[in-house]
Amino acid sequence: MKRRLAYRGRSISVWVEEATLPNGHTTPLDIVRHPGASAVVPFESESDVLLIRQFRHAAGGTIWEVPAGKLDGEAPELCAARELEEEAGRRAGRLVPLATIWTTPGFTDERIHLFAAFELEIVPHRREADEVIELVRMPLDDALALIWSGELADAKSALALLHAARHLGRLR
Amino acid sequence: MKRRLAYRGRSISVWVEEATLPNGHTTPLDIVRHPGASAVVPFESESDVLLIRQFRHAAGGTIWEVPAGKLDGEAPELCAARELEEEAGRRAGRLVPLATIWTTPGFTDERIHLFAAFELEIVPHRREADEVIELVRMPLDDALALIWSGELADAKSALALLHAARHLGRLR
Repeated sequence: MKRRLAYRGRSISVWVEEATLPNGHTTPLDIVRHPGASAVVPFESESDVLLIRQFRHAAGGTIWEVPAGKLDGEAPELCAARELEEEAGRRAGRLVPLATIWTTPGFTDERIHLFAAFELEIVPHRREADEVIELVRMPLDDALALIWSGELADAKSALALLHAARHLGRLR
Repeated sequence: MKRRLAYRGRSISVWVEEATLPNGHTTPLDIVRHPGASAVVPFESESDVLLIRQFRHAAGGTIWEVPAGKLDGEAPELCAARELEEEAGRRAGRLVPLATIWTTPGFTDERIHLFAAFELEIVPHRREADEVIELVRMPLDDALALIWSGELADAKSALALLHAARHLGRLR
């Protein structure tokens, strides 16, 4: 595949790639190549989850999410465990893989691996300076209600919560 | 806000923006500015939906999706109606807005408006040359099963189907 680096920034790189379609046509495409990420739903109890309120410049304000972050050359499970410690101050006794999603395959190869975390233990936060995060504990059912109302709009977080609810038999 | 255009491609533009966090810190951020998009779940009957199988270069193959596309300076409802005609060859008697999602707010402001389409009428396809799309009709429950198994992994499509199922009282 022919491709050239069109832009390398601090956090993303854009490649112009010669894409060959199944019908044989070729077309140049802008692709943000991404290392992938993990996102994790922390269960504080059988019924309660931890959500985070996080400032997102691109969203122009603070939005509901679950702990998540980019793979740092590590396995998705290790990334989920690390982000859980950094963003929620919790260590998981048990991590359950739920699914892997494409965030927006029209212009990036970013995939996010979704997990649920159980048997949590409180550990010191190791938060990065630029992360402004508030932790909120709530019943899983209330978190699902935030999805249905449209208030929890972050795709990875909504899908992680819905997959976790399905895994626990709380969604039929 | 200070910002500069770092890259303008065919389909995406990247800006380096001076982001101010709630704690007062400022940091340069790469942001893919996006016009937004609409995605729509076509209901062929009370129980059956239309999915599409679409080749995605970034995903390295063909994936399950629902009809969707970028806003072309139009309202989200009009975009959903247009993409439904272009990608599924259907005109909707009734479009129901479901929710609006952030696809991946760490590096883009892309939002996708989700809809369900009812009372469909078959119209001629007006497909773009580069779109390689196969239409597949299946029961909504089978589409949900594809989500739970991880086979339907496109975030907007999974969330559109789940919101539609919830809207119809098919998910509790």
